[in-house]
Amino acid sequence: MTRSRARRFRATLYRQLFPEGWQGKGLSPANKIIVAAILVAIGTSVLETEPTISEQPGFAIAAGILDVIFGTLFVSEYIARLWAAGEDPRFAGLAGRLRYAFAPIALLDLIATAPVVVTLGVTDVFVLRSFRVLRIVLIARLGEFSVAARLLGYAVRARRHELLLSAVIAAVVMLLAATSLYFAEGTAQPDNFGSIPRALWWAIVTLTTVGYGDAYPVTVAGRLLAGLSAVAAIGIIAMPTGILAAGFSEAFRQSRERRVGDPASTP
Amino acid sequence: MTRSRARRFRATLYRQLFPEGWQGKGLSPANKIIVAAILVAIGTSVLETEPTISEQPGFAIAAGILDVIFGTLFVSEYIARLWAAGEDPRFAGLAGRLRYAFAPIALLDLIATAPVVVTLGVTDVFVLRSFRVLRIVLIARLGEFSVAARLLGYAVRARRHELLLSAVIAAVVMLLAATSLYFAEGTAQPDNFGSIPRALWWAIVTLTTVGYGDAYPVTVAGRLLAGLSAVAAIGIIAMPTGILAAGFSEAFRQSRERRVGDPASTP
Amino acid sequence: MTRSRARRFRATLYRQLFPEGWQGKGLSPANKIIVAAILVAIGTSVLETEPTISEQPGFAIAAGILDVIFGTLFVSEYIARLWAAGEDPRFAGLAGRLRYAFAPIALLDLIATAPVVVTLGVTDVFVLRSFRVLRIVLIARLGEFSVAARLLGYAVRARRHELLLSAVIAAVVMLLAATSLYFAEGTAQPDNFGSIPRALWWAIVTLTTVGYGDAYPVTVAGRLLAGLSAVAAIGIIAMPTGILAAGFSEAFRQSRERRVGDPASTP
Amino acid sequence: MTRSRARRFRATLYRQLFPEGWQGKGLSPANKIIVAAILVAIGTSVLETEPTISEQPGFAIAAGILDVIFGTLFVSEYIARLWAAGEDPRFAGLAGRLRYAFAPIALLDLIATAPVVVTLGVTDVFVLRSFRVLRIVLIARLGEFSVAARLLGYAVRARRHELLLSAVIAAVVMLLAATSLYFAEGTAQPDNFGSIPRALWWAIVTLTTVGYGDAYPVTVAGRLLAGLSAVAAIGIIAMPTGILAAGFSEAFRQSRERRVGDPASTP
Repeated sequence: MTRSRARRFRATLYRQLFPEGWQGKGLSPANKIIVAAILVAIGTSVLETEPTISEQPGFAIAAGILDVIFGTLFVSEYIARLWAAGEDPRFAGLAGRLRYAFAPIALLDLIATAPVVVTLGVTDVFVLRSFRVLRIVLIARLGEFSVAARLLGYAVRARRHELLLSAVIAAVVMLLAATSLYFAEGTAQPDNFGSIPRALWWAIVTLTTVGYGDAYPVTVAGRLLAGLSAVAAIGIIAMPTGILAAGFSEAFRQSRERRVGDPASTP
Repeated sequence: MTRSRARRFRATLYRQLFPEGWQGKGLSPANKIIVAAILVAIGTSVLETEPTISEQPGFAIAAGILDVIFGTLFVSEYIARLWAAGEDPRFAGLAGRLRYAFAPIALLDLIATAPVVVTLGVTDVFVLRSFRVLRIVLIARLGEFSVAARLLGYAVRARRHELLLSAVIAAVVMLLAATSLYFAEGTAQPDNFGSIPRALWWAIVTLTTVGYGDAYPVTVAGRLLAGLSAVAAIGIIAMPTGILAAGFSEAFRQSRERRVGDPASTP
Repeated sequence: MTRSRARRFRATLYRQLFPEGWQGKGLSPANKIIVAAILVAIGTSVLETEPTISEQPGFAIAAGILDVIFGTLFVSEYIARLWAAGEDPRFAGLAGRLRYAFAPIALLDLIATAPVVVTLGVTDVFVLRSFRVLRIVLIARLGEFSVAARLLGYAVRARRHELLLSAVIAAVVMLLAATSLYFAEGTAQPDNFGSIPRALWWAIVTLTTVGYGDAYPVTVAGRLLAGLSAVAAIGIIAMPTGILAAGFSEAFRQSRERRVGDPASTP
Repeated sequence: MTRSRARRFRATLYRQLFPEGWQGKGLSPANKIIVAAILVAIGTSVLETEPTISEQPGFAIAAGILDVIFGTLFVSEYIARLWAAGEDPRFAGLAGRLRYAFAPIALLDLIATAPVVVTLGVTDVFVLRSFRVLRIVLIARLGEFSVAARLLGYAVRARRHELLLSAVIAAVVMLLAATSLYFAEGTAQPDNFGSIPRALWWAIVTLTTVGYGDAYPVTVAGRLLAGLSAVAAIGIIAMPTGILAAGFSEAFRQSRERRVGDPASTP
């Protein structure tokens, strides 16, 4: 009887933890809690790096407690997921579990979970913790977002050559802009334009229209060339935007037509 | 006879105040006056916060007079609207009026109107007055804009998953950019990059291409990573723009086809 | 015979000056010269405002000579255009000429030409000269650009309600951003955020992603709100871009279909 | 036999060096090496301009060795390409080779290769070296990118009038913005707005949303006009983006339809 209860529990766990197993709308309650815990864990480890917070009295104790809580939660989740994976015929038995554990998603999960165990108590573990961000990306692909992710991914892949080509054009324009400003402004402002790598910093800040204002030309020739570069910046932004817009248009149309053509689907 | 005159007046009021009742093109004359009054009321309460204006002699009197004028107008309008709502069978009688008064739009109207009465003469009432801005949004949905609002709203809702997904991607890129700049620049510029929350301010200002110039990397590693972030910024802007462009394209096409297919409509 | 020669000359002038009369591709030679003269005239009057140029010895004489040359050219052109307009049956005779002279385009031409005569020799006449820029706009509508101008104009007009609505949304977001920063930063930085009109300058510079860096929040609350505003900026740019992209898509498709459907046309 | 071996070698060279001759996917191994060599050569000549690098001991020797290596490689490649071109019937024989050598692409190749020979040992030859960047553009058109390049090029050409018109509109808006700021701010900030050419620098930096922050208005009138300009900036960016998006949409659709319609093609 205990065995059958264990099986029922494993089936419940599978339904709760694996989006393939969950038949309701959106995420399962367990996955909602995990997503929330990941967000809180990321938020607290972001805040822990701020000196005005970490220098508060009692901070070390609070941070340690949070570490233990999140560590226990994520390790339990990993073990539960490994056990429940057996519900899927592909991952049944010990061999199946190993196959599951070495699948890219589960490995990523392990990398994102392991630090908790390894570094419990250690203080500067942000790098390892930052892998938790990757789990957000994974979860963003679940539930209702999976269709959206597939559509966007399809459109980007279908237009990858056009996007790469516009990146190559942007790189060439950036190099030309940096080279011309190096010749026009190099003598007037050696600190900012005295070499092409230095001018490239200006070029990237200008052509992406960020424009910090730490480097800008002051000579007439430099300003004429920078003006041309700024105008080219519009093209550098417009080109990938236009390609993505056209690609998404195509992907949305195709997904609609497929649904329209398929008599089994009700949109 | 007075009663029938009152009914005729109420019918006129209904036609003038309720867009459902107005059969002409655009807004009714009464609604045009109210929209203008709201705009002037918002404009004056914006200007009243400016010290160089509020310190002028005679300012308090002028502001008080404007308060009384706008107060009287908006309260009269609210009462008139409540009374005229009875023309609509759904809101007839006292029960109907109460039902009308507790509908979300009328409640919002009350919130935006009430401060005038409550704070007549009090000086620092901007917060409450700022609710008047909400009334603009409501009015923007009226008249010829209602079709446009429905189209845009439909397109945004239809593509909400794609838009949210691109927001999640943007958030992850922002966090990664802030984390990497924290490691690269944290020692060189502890004020701007000494913690991840501080680096996040830089990341958001850069990845939206605002680029104030209050924080920017100065080390080689920091500039390389910031250059990559600036390039990623193009994607972060291009992705939602492309999704909206494709979504609007779809919505416009569907609205045209429906009109073309429907024999009762003359575009 | 002189009369018939005058007629032939007028017919030639008409073909040269009026795009309706010119049957070749692009602009007629006379109109090309006029466009070039307008560009040079604008260029020189822009440069004349620069002190380092206008303080050169001999500048006054050179500027005076240019004024006489451009003045003579543009006045001659105006008279020639008035005379040649008679070739068009609608503008024949004295009455027709008057009708032509009071048409909006000819009036604009007169406003842009008149200053030359009125101010010959006077120095600070840039305001009047700047009307010449309007002539560029007129000429941009001629020749091969007329189809493009009609397409773009059609698309913008067809989606004017959507564009206006996105402008209203942008204005409301701007006001909300300015109001919240006024509350969050007003005490810390009274010069930049001490009133809503002052905060509006920050809001407009941020929400258009220009980001001069003359005003930016320094408090935690201010930075959180400014971060939200910067993210909203992406929407404020993406929305009209998406509407225009979808509108142009529609206009291009319709223009193609009309050409495909019309048997008389060869694209 | 040596003759036939030479022919076989020439045929191999042709297949390796000419994308027309390569039947595999992507670039041939030889072209991959050449592309990598070009990228490394550009990278090193960019870094050579940086004083902190060029002032290292032993730099001159290392740079000289790199020059000889890249020089030998690119000259060998040019000669090999000239010889192997004979495989193409159009370029067979001496006359054919001359015809090949004077084709635009081969001339550009020569310009980009020649500096290596001419300036071997000379130090400040960056200008000539920068022609190597042009070779990237040529190579970007090869292999899998050729379809993408044709599609993007077709879309831009098909909408060239619309794009030019939006450039004309942007230029007129820029001139109007500069002129109005010259009047509003000229007296308050003669250095930044004291002439229209100076104000044009501000206008171009603002209307492309770069916003360095070296020049911005401080008077009320100037800020009102600058605010209007910043809003116009959104239109100046949105218009070409929208045109490109619609143009790409059209081009992608046509390329798909052609492939669908053409029975000989298998997408």
